[in-house]
Amino acid sequence: MANVLVSTVPFASHDRLPLELLDAVDAHVTINPLGRRLQEEDLAELIATTEILIAGTEPITRKVLNAAPDLRLIARVGIGLDNVDLVAARERGIQVTYTPEAPAPAVAEFTVGLMVSLLRHTHTANALLHNGVWNRLMGRRLGDSTVGVIGVGRIGSRVIQILSSFGVQRLIAHDIEPRSDLIQGTYVEWVSPDEVFREADIVSLHVPLTPDTLNMVCRKQLDLMKTDAVLINTSRGGVVDEAELLRALQDERLGGAAIDVFTHEPYEGPLMQEPRCLLTSHMGSMSIDCRTRMEIEATREAVQFLAGEPALSPVPEEEYLFQVHRSN
Amino acid sequence: MANVLVSTVPFASHDRLPLELLDAVDAHVTINPLGRRLQEEDLAELIATTEILIAGTEPITRKVLNAAPDLRLIARVGIGLDNVDLVAARERGIQVTYTPEAPAPAVAEFTVGLMVSLLRHTHTANALLHNGVWNRLMGRRLGDSTVGVIGVGRIGSRVIQILSSFGVQRLIAHDIEPRSDLIQGTYVEWVSPDEVFREADIVSLHVPLTPDTLNMVCRKQLDLMKTDAVLINTSRGGVVDEAELLRALQDERLGGAAIDVFTHEPYEGPLMQEPRCLLTSHMGSMSIDCRTRMEIEATREAVQFLAGEPALSPVPEEEYLFQVHRSN
Repeated sequence: MANVLVSTVPFASHDRLPLELLDAVDAHVTINPLGRRLQEEDLAELIATTEILIAGTEPITRKVLNAAPDLRLIARVGIGLDNVDLVAARERGIQVTYTPEAPAPAVAEFTVGLMVSLLRHTHTANALLHNGVWNRLMGRRLGDSTVGVIGVGRIGSRVIQILSSFGVQRLIAHDIEPRSDLIQGTYVEWVSPDEVFREADIVSLHVPLTPDTLNMVCRKQLDLMKTDAVLINTSRGGVVDEAELLRALQDERLGGAAIDVFTHEPYEGPLMQEPRCLLTSHMGSMSIDCRTRMEIEATREAVQFLAGEPALSPVPEEEYLFQVHRSN
Repeated sequence: MANVLVSTVPFASHDRLPLELLDAVDAHVTINPLGRRLQEEDLAELIATTEILIAGTEPITRKVLNAAPDLRLIARVGIGLDNVDLVAARERGIQVTYTPEAPAPAVAEFTVGLMVSLLRHTHTANALLHNGVWNRLMGRRLGDSTVGVIGVGRIGSRVIQILSSFGVQRLIAHDIEPRSDLIQGTYVEWVSPDEVFREADIVSLHVPLTPDTLNMVCRKQLDLMKTDAVLINTSRGGVVDEAELLRALQDERLGGAAIDVFTHEPYEGPLMQEPRCLLTSHMGSMSIDCRTRMEIEATREAVQFLAGEPALSPVPEEEYLFQVHRSN
């Protein structure tokens, strides 16, 4: 009977199929007993006899892997791999899989919703009116704005696709590998990162966290932005320098921001005191349909593995190369 | 020199063209000196020598008109006419114009933004995290939902058009005059109002306030709705019975609501105590581009009138008939 540890939370909260799949293969399942994102030490303690880890964004470091002599598969529920030490996993012969397609529809839709909320001050008006203050805040229309997208992969391209029906005035984008000028029916101008920051009314980030994107949005980029522009990060904490963002908001060098991901999660920090920063709790992929798909896909990897079948979605070689590059 | 009273607020706050247009025709302009929505008594006092009123949503009642012996034109900045006693205006030979097209893009976009906010609990997470609570709230995806639209006129049809890029699972709608099954590229199922309330995950209201729509959403309709469905009203206060909505939210017979318009504005009432009600301050049309267009269009009516030219957008006859019907 294989020991399976589910470290991600929530799990199977709206659809029990992932648990049923594990029951059907007679796995011995332990679900994160702390009910919150695990710290390195928590995980190192829980993982001693684990053979298969169904993982969230908690740190799966070399130290954790050293505490897991029986571990043979890490099945990430999600797409980001910045929390997994892939090099150390490979050294120990531990396979790693992920679910790269499943989160995209939920993250893209959430992001477009944040754009409208920021431009129209929905969150601000809501907070004011719940405190008895009626203030007809003037905003801007997405259809009257220049939207800048940095990172046009699975999620960024879906954001562009959703924006197609808003009649966005101008869509500018940057990616390390620019694609066609026409994405899902929308004309995209490929520009440098600096031009995105300088010209967009809304800058939305859709990059993985890598050595190249760490602190990608820092003082310099924030200073390039228009003083009434807004920044959205639903990608990964670490991509935006939180201290510089706070300063830019406090000094009114920036119109607003929506931040869903943080360097340290759960987030506790000074952005909580800044009303012009719309804050959410890493909820980009948290729609019932996408979350369920992610959990089922990760669980299927466990089932495949136990049956001796090849992984459905192994982490591609380039992700390992990224991390080798980082560790040098 | 004609006396022009601008009672709507804000006015010309982002684009001074409306004031320049009035200057160019040598009008004597008084701008709402109270800086807030006027009550009936305020307006009756201010309007004594007014010839042209550039109006918002304040009550332009028979009593107000009785206090305005010189009034000859009411130019509404906006589309709703429920605040203007059209019958009394006509009896006094006062012309009434409105700006029916201008608000639609802003209201439609705002409404779709509210849909995503409600489904993904963006406003709730923002309030929680600003209070130090990290809670990864699970939501639903618009693309995985049935959306119900009541009232498919200028605004409702634009909402449907914007939704086309979200890949909404099912779109059901009701209007007193059903139109084509294909609206702006989206397939629409025309159903009864009860079916909209019963089957939609999101019900969005886009009707004028008339005797037929007054308290259209009452206990019965709220009880038809699914317990996890959400209600959005960006049309007019009075269409939703606020006391019944509050009860439905408190009793968890409803998943949530976003209310932008109220029976009495500025709103002060018990919905302010209900965190599951996303509240905004009649901001549907408050985007710089649409608001400016509305103000310019209304101001152009004043200019036309002073030049002895016909109105560009007089209130259509059916609006008068509605009100005759109401007064009987």
